[in-house]
Amino acid sequence: MSNFMAEFLGTLLLVWLGDGVVASVALNKSKGKDGGWIVVTVAWGLAVAIPVYIFGGISGAHINPAVTIANAVVGKFAWSQVPAYVSAQVLGGIVGAVLVWLTYLPHWKETEDKATKLGVFCTAPAIRNTTANFLCEFLVTALLVFGLMGLGQAEMVAGISALAVGLFIVVIGLSLGGPTGYAINPARDLGPRIAHAILPIAGKGDSDWGYSWIPVLGPIVGGIAGALLFVSVF
Amino acid sequence: MSNFMAEFLGTLLLVWLGDGVVASVALNKSKGKDGGWIVVTVAWGLAVAIPVYIFGGISGAHINPAVTIANAVVGKFAWSQVPAYVSAQVLGGIVGAVLVWLTYLPHWKETEDKATKLGVFCTAPAIRNTTANFLCEFLVTALLVFGLMGLGQAEMVAGISALAVGLFIVVIGLSLGGPTGYAINPARDLGPRIAHAILPIAGKGDSDWGYSWIPVLGPIVGGIAGALLFVSVF
Amino acid sequence: MSNFMAEFLGTLLLVWLGDGVVASVALNKSKGKDGGWIVVTVAWGLAVAIPVYIFGGISGAHINPAVTIANAVVGKFAWSQVPAYVSAQVLGGIVGAVLVWLTYLPHWKETEDKATKLGVFCTAPAIRNTTANFLCEFLVTALLVFGLMGLGQAEMVAGISALAVGLFIVVIGLSLGGPTGYAINPARDLGPRIAHAILPIAGKGDSDWGYSWIPVLGPIVGGIAGALLFVSVF
Amino acid sequence: MSNFMAEFLGTLLLVWLGDGVVASVALNKSKGKDGGWIVVTVAWGLAVAIPVYIFGGISGAHINPAVTIANAVVGKFAWSQVPAYVSAQVLGGIVGAVLVWLTYLPHWKETEDKATKLGVFCTAPAIRNTTANFLCEFLVTALLVFGLMGLGQAEMVAGISALAVGLFIVVIGLSLGGPTGYAINPARDLGPRIAHAILPIAGKGDSDWGYSWIPVLGPIVGGIAGALLFVSVF
Repeated sequence: MSNFMAEFLGTLLLVWLGDGVVASVALNKSKGKDGGWIVVTVAWGLAVAIPVYIFGGISGAHINPAVTIANAVVGKFAWSQVPAYVSAQVLGGIVGAVLVWLTYLPHWKETEDKATKLGVFCTAPAIRNTTANFLCEFLVTALLVFGLMGLGQAEMVAGISALAVGLFIVVIGLSLGGPTGYAINPARDLGPRIAHAILPIAGKGDSDWGYSWIPVLGPIVGGIAGALLFVSVF
Repeated sequence: MSNFMAEFLGTLLLVWLGDGVVASVALNKSKGKDGGWIVVTVAWGLAVAIPVYIFGGISGAHINPAVTIANAVVGKFAWSQVPAYVSAQVLGGIVGAVLVWLTYLPHWKETEDKATKLGVFCTAPAIRNTTANFLCEFLVTALLVFGLMGLGQAEMVAGISALAVGLFIVVIGLSLGGPTGYAINPARDLGPRIAHAILPIAGKGDSDWGYSWIPVLGPIVGGIAGALLFVSVF
Repeated sequence: MSNFMAEFLGTLLLVWLGDGVVASVALNKSKGKDGGWIVVTVAWGLAVAIPVYIFGGISGAHINPAVTIANAVVGKFAWSQVPAYVSAQVLGGIVGAVLVWLTYLPHWKETEDKATKLGVFCTAPAIRNTTANFLCEFLVTALLVFGLMGLGQAEMVAGISALAVGLFIVVIGLSLGGPTGYAINPARDLGPRIAHAILPIAGKGDSDWGYSWIPVLGPIVGGIAGALLFVSVF
Repeated sequence: MSNFMAEFLGTLLLVWLGDGVVASVALNKSKGKDGGWIVVTVAWGLAVAIPVYIFGGISGAHINPAVTIANAVVGKFAWSQVPAYVSAQVLGGIVGAVLVWLTYLPHWKETEDKATKLGVFCTAPAIRNTTANFLCEFLVTALLVFGLMGLGQAEMVAGISALAVGLFIVVIGLSLGGPTGYAINPARDLGPRIAHAILPIAGKGDSDWGYSWIPVLGPIVGGIAGALLFVSVF
């Protein structure tokens, strides 16, 4: 399998399972309705762990442009491969979101609120504040990339690393996801936002493009900062 | 131990623990009443992981006809063994459901709603829609079988694989179980439905046979699709 | 360290952490008040896993007379050691419960209901029915012992087995704890009940000795049945 | 990397993720608001596990003065290193709390209650009672240090130990965190309390210095007791 295919399928899985849990807790008549923050965060953590298990041995399972770019900046990843990785990730994010739409097909028209439906696809801040929202995505993605590099050089037998990465995502969500919904991944946010704009979702509203650059640029800049910090202290 | 016995006992355990958690959150006066979606999904994940730990080394612990048939279709499992596996699984599903009935014996008459009682045994859609329900079971079981095959070839030390499978089931439930209750396993749905039809459950209603073919056929066809996708990309 | 000391400290830990979580969700003003079934069951599972990690290499960390006796019946444990194991377990259960009382010292008088306070120490059935309660403890402990023996012969690298055992306890609680509160361990029930009878707990009621034989005898007979089933099929 | 840097960064991570989850469940408009005790305790457990994974191979990842001092008392750690470890830990606690403040920047002024805001940074007892609060922190930290030493000599393959430590923290929180909020770590409480006193938090109240000695002295004395018990029985 090519790296492109692995990153595509890995991000597809991430978004299908990750956006899926938001659909489950947010859409009317879903059996997971109002499942709570533990449901959302555990699912997103495992939505990362599973593709890391399956595709980690092929492409490294970045499944996140912020991770790919940060690794390139500090010389741990070839710049020549960045375009393929990032485009596969965004494409995977789009198709994953389409699968969420299909899985929950009869639930969209049962749900009135347009922002709730958009919230299944991409993030929106709890309090809209450009500086604070950017800072939050910056800081949390810096932590993400620093921590992933740290976990990457910890000694572990085969099969534990993906689990540790998943648990790291769980705690990031539980603890630091409150203000912006922790995009921390441009493909996870932009891909599904594109899908939301394109798909004939019953009773959908606009795709909030005014906010869309924050969960793209914040994670990219934050990821680079986290990687630079990592190589400067380790 | 024969493969038949392993698949029988494994599916029995799966359904005893899996349907058990639905009894716990749904039946009146249960100490787990209204425990929430995290309770249901974590329990179903572990209800898979435990039999995989115990019986994986014997029969492979398919404990799911959709897995058995999908593996046969792509040549990873002998067709000659399919009848024994599938019959053991359905039989295990029946007996597991009988054990749930016995474990919760005084709680059935305390619970008025007939659909609630049936819901302990087998799945029902949140929104009844043949096409969408079938599509949902198809898609989610395709993901299940694709993912199980992917996890099966990931490198892991002994004892991690069953855990990873369990966590995969947890996230499938959390994220994609909202519309149909994720049967994704014909034996898990048909076996307990048969038990429901036969057992003298206090104040029971009908067994909703009109829906019963969807959680059988959807998973079988979806599982085959997932397996074909897997062998075409890996 | 002697086996006696390991079983004593192991059961002490089990009950301190296990009864502790019931105190946390049940006693007024506790920060964990009304934490829900997931809180109770995850804590009990880890309350088993931690002593298995710490003392498993010494005494085997039975920390449960039903496990000790069942192993003796099928010839996997020396009868001559049973009295020391069981007395250490019950003693550990008593001292563990004393530590729960001390940890939550100012919370007892803040809690009116006498049954709630007793419920921190020992189990009570959701629906009082001798036959059904006995049957429930019998069935669930049979599953416990069968499963522990199954996990014990599954291939796992060092450090996974205690985790698997803990997760097994989690799912038993989630799924089958609804009717009787899953004593499944005479020392976990009788030891704290003795502590409840002795300790000067503010505003305590009686210790419900009329029920006390069920969570002792049910688990012992059920554990033996589970062990006999195991050796007959494996 | 120096031990000082590892302890500093490790405790910073611990407090950023740990205090972060309290911010998430407590501050108004947070997406994790009212997430419940399972959210708080799982996050604190992982907030320990992640730095243990990343820094355990460097400094041992004490990230807790009670652990450092207790190890020194029983001769498992050089007294000469204690000042550097403890000062790094407290400093990390301060900076971690600053990062929580920044991550949740727009949420402070949305939250009226001053005690709620202080509670994000440091612990306060559910029932204010000097003797009982001290006893609680003493007992629970004795358990923490005893258990960490026990886990430290259990046989585990690489990568499991940090997970086991994290799960141990989860169960301590679930079961024994009800009365005082389980500081069990002077740096986790004193560092953020200092940050609270210094930072220009919108609408903050006083820093409750009257209570501050209990979550410092209780854990130190308790940790020593736990270590002495451990070396006396093992």
